[in-house]
Amino acid sequence: MKNRAISLSTLLFSLVLILAACSNSRAPGSSTAGQPAATTAAADPLPSWNDGPAKQAILDFVKTTTDKSNSKFVPSEDRIATFDQDGTTWVEQPIYSQVLFMFDRVAELAPQHPEWKTKPPFKAIVTGDKEAMAKFTLKDIEVLAMATHTGMTTDAFQTIVKDWWAKAKHPRFDRPYSEMVYQPMLELMKYLRDNGYRTYIVTGGGQDFVRTYAQQVYGIPPEQIIGSALDTQYEYNKEGQGILMRDPKLLLNNNGVGKAEDIYLFIGKHPRAAFGNTEGDREMLEYTHASGGASLEMLVLHDDATREYAYGPAQGLPDTKVGTFTQALYDEAKAKGWTVISMKNDWKQIFSWEK
Amino acid sequence: MKNRAISLSTLLFSLVLILAACSNSRAPGSSTAGQPAATTAAADPLPSWNDGPAKQAILDFVKTTTDKSNSKFVPSEDRIATFDQDGTTWVEQPIYSQVLFMFDRVAELAPQHPEWKTKPPFKAIVTGDKEAMAKFTLKDIEVLAMATHTGMTTDAFQTIVKDWWAKAKHPRFDRPYSEMVYQPMLELMKYLRDNGYRTYIVTGGGQDFVRTYAQQVYGIPPEQIIGSALDTQYEYNKEGQGILMRDPKLLLNNNGVGKAEDIYLFIGKHPRAAFGNTEGDREMLEYTHASGGASLEMLVLHDDATREYAYGPAQGLPDTKVGTFTQALYDEAKAKGWTVISMKNDWKQIFSWEK
Repeated sequence: MKNRAISLSTLLFSLVLILAACSNSRAPGSSTAGQPAATTAAADPLPSWNDGPAKQAILDFVKTTTDKSNSKFVPSEDRIATFDQDGTTWVEQPIYSQVLFMFDRVAELAPQHPEWKTKPPFKAIVTGDKEAMAKFTLKDIEVLAMATHTGMTTDAFQTIVKDWWAKAKHPRFDRPYSEMVYQPMLELMKYLRDNGYRTYIVTGGGQDFVRTYAQQVYGIPPEQIIGSALDTQYEYNKEGQGILMRDPKLLLNNNGVGKAEDIYLFIGKHPRAAFGNTEGDREMLEYTHASGGASLEMLVLHDDATREYAYGPAQGLPDTKVGTFTQALYDEAKAKGWTVISMKNDWKQIFSWEK
Repeated sequence: MKNRAISLSTLLFSLVLILAACSNSRAPGSSTAGQPAATTAAADPLPSWNDGPAKQAILDFVKTTTDKSNSKFVPSEDRIATFDQDGTTWVEQPIYSQVLFMFDRVAELAPQHPEWKTKPPFKAIVTGDKEAMAKFTLKDIEVLAMATHTGMTTDAFQTIVKDWWAKAKHPRFDRPYSEMVYQPMLELMKYLRDNGYRTYIVTGGGQDFVRTYAQQVYGIPPEQIIGSALDTQYEYNKEGQGILMRDPKLLLNNNGVGKAEDIYLFIGKHPRAAFGNTEGDREMLEYTHASGGASLEMLVLHDDATREYAYGPAQGLPDTKVGTFTQALYDEAKAKGWTVISMKNDWKQIFSWEK
């Protein structure tokens, strides 16, 4: 697999340089376009979606593929839907939640590491030096990632993430991350599941990280989370019981081509529906499109700076290093009949708590 | 993960040296102990099992873990049962089915490779030189494996295996491999599934190989097959569609420690029941035992030369390089309360076609 040898840093964190700046942040609470789901018909499985080509594409796909008399019928064992996470099912701006976890974890561990006060790159975080943080190199990020993600058992890491998760809040919206999920995507997941589709998260983020909360947030069990993964090492603890230690070595870089490769590794077949929002989702959508049968490919375009964020650079939206949606990807989508979801126009309500 | 860098050869084929000899083969059709399932009570979920400690251990485990009032109750999301394949769910003697596939495939490809007539190690197979085959080195086996398992798309490989599968027969019993599966294990899988357990195959064999027939043979879908896996490479075909090419590089060596590590990679939690028969299953059973709750660990001891094969060397049975069950593993099982299944005593019927 391409790029399997690269470091963990490139996995999630290659764009962290903008962390300190966070210049894309916008004022919270300025929602105006949101409409409560209750205003739509009770029978509507997608009440947070406005009528339009995106919603219609979903309804048509489900109708077509679950109708036995239709030539595009998809048998239940092949009904697989894969969702990118960051920027597709929840907010990824101003920076990925897992990067915030990494920085919070360094701060938490700092008392046990007095040497970090003077040792880069830890020093920048411990002393709150945003200028230095803005200059982090990929190597710096890799050092930080390995210090926070490896060297413990898999069980211990799970506990660490759960503890962080219980108190972490989004820097702009000041809400727990469980509330930063997109209501239309939750409805879409449920609608697909209600029609026999198995929903998977296929994320560039850490598989173990996402698995700690995915059941709670998305209703998706651990075995249906495919993500970037570190090597583990089987060892014995003092009681002689088998344990798995997290190794500082990347086993799966689940981004770009890695998403197609890992979907095959984990599931053994093409998805029939795939949802993403960046260059890193291109091959997942292509591989879905290549199933040879009916398929649905959708890309979320963040064009709503008021209710969420606006970035591309596709369609003239502001450029970003977090969740880049290029014009080339947009053009490929149009050429191949993939649907681009406009957050501004297609989503009546983005978050469940919107008034 | 330990041994991840080793070649594909060690994966499945390290024991192939005995192939030409096949000295353990015994006369077919000499079944006497088999009893048709119909003679047992209709309500018995395990009619091919004789009453005894092994059958009782299964019944007790299921009763305990599905009873909400029991302190050892296991919630449905944690009901995971993992089965080794070769020697646990079907016959592995005189040699693994996948090795037979490899040799058959070399013979089939030979007309397209006239150079193989004089080029070792292919020459030995093409000319039927059993003496030379008996002297194959690990390097030879690796060359053969790569020539037969890589360089094609994942879809093409699936077709190749399916075609082989449709006509391959066991050398001693002269029956299709679909009939070489152990009836008691099929009953056990169904019984566990009927009680909310998800059944997985966790095999040292090739994941893609087993996935081609597992639904038909075991009723287990591709995503619940965890096996040794080659790297794949995402590319585009002439039509510009995304395809996956099989690379001559081992990604997952799903044997020994690899089984525990890959169970965690794919499922994210400990199994509660695990079934194996060799040294390569030790860590899977240990990891199951380490769940912290109720668990069931079982090892199949091949002690029935009449109806199947007899090999160990545990308990003084003949030694073998295919499916080695050491005395040390036997002793660990006894010390930890794992159940050893005697094929001779615990299985009333081994194959569905036994009279």
